[in-house]
Amino acid sequence: MCTGADHTIHRARHHFGWDKAIAPVMHVEPGARLSFECLDAACGHFTPQSTVADVATLASDTINPVTGPVFVDGAEPGDALKVTIEAFEPSGFGWTANIPGFGLLADQFPDPALHLWRYDVAGRVPALFGANARVPLKPFAGTIGVAPAAPGRHSVVPPRRVGGNLDIRDLAAGTTLYLPVEVAGALFSIGDTHAAQGDGEVCGTAIESAMTVALKLDLVKQAGLSMPRFTTPGPVTRHLDGAGYEVTTGVGPDLQEGARTALAGMIELIAREHGLAPVDAYMLCSVCGDLRISEIVDAPNWVVSFYFPRAVFA
Amino acid sequence: MCTGADHTIHRARHHFGWDKAIAPVMHVEPGARLSFECLDAACGHFTPQSTVADVATLASDTINPVTGPVFVDGAEPGDALKVTIEAFEPSGFGWTANIPGFGLLADQFPDPALHLWRYDVAGRVPALFGANARVPLKPFAGTIGVAPAAPGRHSVVPPRRVGGNLDIRDLAAGTTLYLPVEVAGALFSIGDTHAAQGDGEVCGTAIESAMTVALKLDLVKQAGLSMPRFTTPGPVTRHLDGAGYEVTTGVGPDLQEGARTALAGMIELIAREHGLAPVDAYMLCSVCGDLRISEIVDAPNWVVSFYFPRAVFA
Repeated sequence: MCTGADHTIHRARHHFGWDKAIAPVMHVEPGARLSFECLDAACGHFTPQSTVADVATLASDTINPVTGPVFVDGAEPGDALKVTIEAFEPSGFGWTANIPGFGLLADQFPDPALHLWRYDVAGRVPALFGANARVPLKPFAGTIGVAPAAPGRHSVVPPRRVGGNLDIRDLAAGTTLYLPVEVAGALFSIGDTHAAQGDGEVCGTAIESAMTVALKLDLVKQAGLSMPRFTTPGPVTRHLDGAGYEVTTGVGPDLQEGARTALAGMIELIAREHGLAPVDAYMLCSVCGDLRISEIVDAPNWVVSFYFPRAVFA
Repeated sequence: MCTGADHTIHRARHHFGWDKAIAPVMHVEPGARLSFECLDAACGHFTPQSTVADVATLASDTINPVTGPVFVDGAEPGDALKVTIEAFEPSGFGWTANIPGFGLLADQFPDPALHLWRYDVAGRVPALFGANARVPLKPFAGTIGVAPAAPGRHSVVPPRRVGGNLDIRDLAAGTTLYLPVEVAGALFSIGDTHAAQGDGEVCGTAIESAMTVALKLDLVKQAGLSMPRFTTPGPVTRHLDGAGYEVTTGVGPDLQEGARTALAGMIELIAREHGLAPVDAYMLCSVCGDLRISEIVDAPNWVVSFYFPRAVFA
């Protein structure tokens, strides 16, 4: 990866869960440019030869490895770590699974499913799903964060105010992310790289894929930041919005139920119109469809909408 | 309005609330092309001479007038009404208010506020807010729906599965909307037109503005539709996404609280960076910023993000 990185953090230097007691793999000065080799969220469990039977043997104690942690000299609680995300070098192999018990419609999709992807590492050619669906690519890191102040080991699954498993689709190349620092040195780690995902990550997985990430770490002293925030240098949906969207809605007093209703409506629509099995439509929605809150003020009913890009079937 | 409409429904033919007992103003065949004159959501209460004192005298029984209802011959419960939204003819005057007790952060913004807009009716020039903010325009109808089957009068404020006050930003020209029909003739009405709004309509109002809407009504017999859905013919954010976004997040176990946290973070950010009063930043967020659900699967914490288009201050 021709990024001019000062250091490479190799994939062997990964950890599971967040714990400020984990020894840093490296100390760097603010301004350091680093290259992180990231394992995929299943830690290499799936290969091009995998079958759906392999979903059942996923080990829960080795999910979402993150590469790091890196100690940033001078970082103190109250600062913000400024992460400039520069480039991704994707591996070209990925997987998407329906994992029983996990995902927004886990109750409706109890059986495991697995889709394996071979995709263009340059990202110029959408990735084929089934016979007709073409998913535009936009690599990003699903898990990116710093260590929480609370002692002990914390599950990697939930994101927190210090970041972590944010699964924000737009933390792509060019984006600048600010994370609240809670411990000395910040203790930055990254992993769970995705080749594509929609807002929501509705089935629980994206195009999960090992890749290398180049980024720069800086400090903003005493930033007073309460939650992660980021800046994108340009549009975030132009890789897939050209043909417009099919949109389903969920109208009601609970945003979570509204999201479930909107998603279920889209699965039904695209399964019927494009001859997909419902679980395949569910996984396809997860890698390219977006959950948006259309209105949140007309009490007692809110509107959550699910946007599916028509370019996928164009 | 040169739309080739078969009929015009004048603004005097409006009603307040939904009630299947309201007599139709017109009967039309499927395929009819109609032009609806829509009053603004305050029924003409605000004028270019209004001041913030006029917010206190808003009458609660004359909000959100809708023009109609139109009886579509042959429409029966179980059908879908297909509404092809063809064109808007905006009035050029609009208002945005913080109305005490209404809006996502009503507890934090108890005092009334009012912003009056003069905007380009052709929509080519963004509308100025304060000294520096320029809001791109995209007219749409906030309230669009058909009569519910349940007898009696129903408040216009909450949207329902038959549509109504959906406040969906992308119900703009070119969009095709499908609404579940619950009563004979469907009884279609439309109003609450907006010159611009972000996803969420977070302060409770958009650029509220009277305008005329041209549309076509068709039927899909026995469509089996459970909630409104729509199709957009092209991208939905290119009028404002060119310079990218500032994004704040709310991470936690409740989507509503996450939305409040993300919005409060954005208000603080743009108020500080651009010298706006917080209530002005709140109203500005409402007319151009978007609430998105970034992830909804990493239990127990979800991520709601607020996207503010940087083009507004570019």
